Amino acid sequence: MSTKKAIAVIAGVGPGTGSSIARKFAQHYPVIVLARNPSNYAEVVQTINSSGGQAIGLSTDLSDSTSVSSTFKKITTELFPDSPIAAAVFNSGGGFVRKPFLELTESEFAAGWEGQVKGAFLFAQATLPLLLKGVEEKVEFPPSLIFTGATASIRGSANFSVFASAKFGLRALSQSLAREFGPKGVHVSHVIVDGVIDIPRTKEWKFEHEDAKISPDAIADSYWFLHTQPRTTFAYELDLRPYVEKW
Amino acid sequence: MSTKKAIAVIAGVGPGTGSSIARKFAQHYPVIVLARNPSNYAEVVQTINSSGGQAIGLSTDLSDSTSVSSTFKKITTELFPDSPIAAAVFNSGGGFVRKPFLELTESEFAAGWEGQVKGAFLFAQATLPLLLKGVEEKVEFPPSLIFTGATASIRGSANFSVFASAKFGLRALSQSLAREFGPKGVHVSHVIVDGVIDIPRTKEWKFEHEDAKISPDAIADSYWFLHTQPRTTFAYELDLRPYVEKW
Amino acid sequence: MSTKKAIAVIAGVGPGTGSSIARKFAQHYPVIVLARNPSNYAEVVQTINSSGGQAIGLSTDLSDSTSVSSTFKKITTELFPDSPIAAAVFNSGGGFVRKPFLELTESEFAAGWEGQVKGAFLFAQATLPLLLKGVEEKVEFPPSLIFTGATASIRGSANFSVFASAKFGLRALSQSLAREFGPKGVHVSHVIVDGVIDIPRTKEWKFEHEDAKISPDAIADSYWFLHTQPRTTFAYELDLRPYVEKW
Amino acid sequence: MSTKKAIAVIAGVGPGTGSSIARKFAQHYPVIVLARNPSNYAEVVQTINSSGGQAIGLSTDLSDSTSVSSTFKKITTELFPDSPIAAAVFNSGGGFVRKPFLELTESEFAAGWEGQVKGAFLFAQATLPLLLKGVEEKVEFPPSLIFTGATASIRGSANFSVFASAKFGLRALSQSLAREFGPKGVHVSHVIVDGVIDIPRTKEWKFEHEDAKISPDAIADSYWFLHTQPRTTFAYELDLRPYVEKW
Repeated sequence: MSTKKAIAVIAGVGPGTGSSIARKFAQHYPVIVLARNPSNYAEVVQTINSSGGQAIGLSTDLSDSTSVSSTFKKITTELFPDSPIAAAVFNSGGGFVRKPFLELTESEFAAGWEGQVKGAFLFAQATLPLLLKGVEEKVEFPPSLIFTGATASIRGSANFSVFASAKFGLRALSQSLAREFGPKGVHVSHVIVDGVIDIPRTKEWKFEHEDAKISPDAIADSYWFLHTQPRTTFAYELDLRPYVEKW
Repeated sequence: MSTKKAIAVIAGVGPGTGSSIARKFAQHYPVIVLARNPSNYAEVVQTINSSGGQAIGLSTDLSDSTSVSSTFKKITTELFPDSPIAAAVFNSGGGFVRKPFLELTESEFAAGWEGQVKGAFLFAQATLPLLLKGVEEKVEFPPSLIFTGATASIRGSANFSVFASAKFGLRALSQSLAREFGPKGVHVSHVIVDGVIDIPRTKEWKFEHEDAKISPDAIADSYWFLHTQPRTTFAYELDLRPYVEKW
Repeated sequence: MSTKKAIAVIAGVGPGTGSSIARKFAQHYPVIVLARNPSNYAEVVQTINSSGGQAIGLSTDLSDSTSVSSTFKKITTELFPDSPIAAAVFNSGGGFVRKPFLELTESEFAAGWEGQVKGAFLFAQATLPLLLKGVEEKVEFPPSLIFTGATASIRGSANFSVFASAKFGLRALSQSLAREFGPKGVHVSHVIVDGVIDIPRTKEWKFEHEDAKISPDAIADSYWFLHTQPRTTFAYELDLRPYVEKW
Repeated sequence: MSTKKAIAVIAGVGPGTGSSIARKFAQHYPVIVLARNPSNYAEVVQTINSSGGQAIGLSTDLSDSTSVSSTFKKITTELFPDSPIAAAVFNSGGGFVRKPFLELTESEFAAGWEGQVKGAFLFAQATLPLLLKGVEEKVEFPPSLIFTGATASIRGSANFSVFASAKFGLRALSQSLAREFGPKGVHVSHVIVDGVIDIPRTKEWKFEHEDAKISPDAIADSYWFLHTQPRTTFAYELDLRPYVEKW
């Protein structure tokens, strides 16, 4: 047992869901948070560290293999040598373009895939060996690899070809990994977030009901729930939406 | 607020999942457990009552409207008058026949629907008014109506026409109710249990891995997790399976 | 080879899709058309017979096993003794109630299942032995059993619990039969009709585009297409909708 | 009306499905066939031209925007100036790697997306303006854009992360396009080919039943069927498999 050393790695941390997930997992593990821009994780890192947890932010471009491998080299040689990963969360957000198909440029289209699918590929390749190490070392909960999906993960729509093709691809990757690494003891799962999340960026969006936005802290609770399931009883997929959402 | 009086009703309680769910919810609510045969719930009722909880078993044929309405009349007039329902779980099991299609009798085929779909219809009609009462009275957690599904809820198979057509029907019902009663504040959800559950009946079933069966207590934890989600962040569907399950 | 004797049986024939399907298959086979009320099939029977085809209408309550077996006894002993069935189409329509869940009566709810699922069960049990006879006798095209679905076959909605639970159940049945009888050479398929069909009953329904309704003749062409696929290349499911339909 | 000038463009033509599709559509239209390697289309071009049809092969790397635009410049300025496209088929095959996830290189993973999703993006951007021109000019059948999918389009599996993430992405793209361009009169559809196709490469693969492989000519018939559907009655998706296939 080496539970104390096991860490959590949260990729795609901004001032919304990623921060909530980091705070939640920091109640139990040292957390590494990754984002391209340090301004995205600075606040949550400080909040966690000043409230008795341990958080380290590492500036990382998840779609760039050099950047990802440099980040994980730092984790495994400097920061937490010999630590297994207890939980790895891929929560990379958007920057995706929503426009009529014939107006898309090739690079706008490619950006969706790079951010979501290639990023998830690189993140999974970096974390899975350390998650498997967690299985070997019998860490407290089944090591977990969780991917954040969206409505567009299961439905293509007009003007959403960039996001939908990326999110479908991400879901296929997560499903393939669940079927390959589940039997090895890693809990791979996929969460479909269907609705507007209540984050700073959406603060001004008003709806008929004041509680019509998804709570990022409740999303984090769901991720923690998935993480703590025993391996006899893994959930692969979960869909989250506000009670008033049409679906 | 009338939280103390809110009750949980678990339909389809035998010596497996239903009992685990009853024990879990009994940590928070008085529970009513329903099964046709009192021998199915006698043990769990005693366990709960002797460990500080409150449980009452009511012999009920869920597919018989007279039996269901007599049970709920007893609940609302004698046992817990004025109590809202905090959680209602439809966990009605099997008794379904698995055989070549051309060998099925009409009554064997109908039995699947009666037990699963008609039973769920009657249970939902009896519990929803009391769940809505829970919304009005602002009970602690969003009142929840949870249905137990199976692999056959999303996949028809050779020799499984009875079970699959019943379980598909049940899922359609739960989805229709989620879309009708979610906006009214009731959390309707559907759990797909995909694999062999570790219950007395399956004790002798041996697999390559000793932890290859789903834990009924972990299923119960999932139902409790669904029940405690805030209404900003409802999950509709969850699929549970052992880590070694092929799917 | 006994191609000449092979017949088609179309269940659920009214002045819309069923009639179109009957006319289409009557170009190749003698057709039997079934409906509860003879007024539903009288016109199409006359049209087919007066234009060189052969059609016979038999008044049948598809949800009543006595009525169904009496119909098939008539077919196999009087009308077409020794004939295999080349194509059997279950196109039973509606009569389903659309209303708030708590206002439904038990018999309104049951009627959906009786008409769709029990009806399909009885029809499949009556036709499959004759479809298998078609396989044995190597009729021209793979004997086909086709079920008509709807949007509600894959999506439950508020106020649609009757129809959705019935149509999900029908789809499960068709999928189970496809997996059981496909390997025996019978082509079982399921067609999701998603949109308003252009039939007498919807004549007055106006849309922004004048060709916004599904053509029943084009539906019939799709059924014929499915019927003529070789068994190396069976389609199980097809979704049909007007080009302007939101989905 | 300019029906005579309308052309078909088939992308991804090798000695299997692509050739069958080209031959089928060549019975009605001049066809352009695209493949990276001219040896892939040489035979079908000759077969079509020598049997009274008109076929032109253009060597094209579908994942390279320069190559795609040079091909379509040639089509629109030299070969068929002013012609609308009646049917465009994206049938790009494989070259995908199937191996344990942790053994995949970044470029092996990217190749799946490049060949399937980026290729389909470039092909759709090149053909949609000419398909819309077909709508305007009221060509005989609704202009059609058809994508070839696979089992992996709807199911991720161990060792299939490359193919599944690419095929899911392709399906998302096709679904987004169907919802954007359907209402403009273009019939976008997606065909899931589930099973082994009977092509030269699989000639030696033996199964228990001799007709256990999908016929490429029957696939082509299905594409033609989709193409000829009227716009009141578009199918979006079709799944094709041999009668003995387990699914």
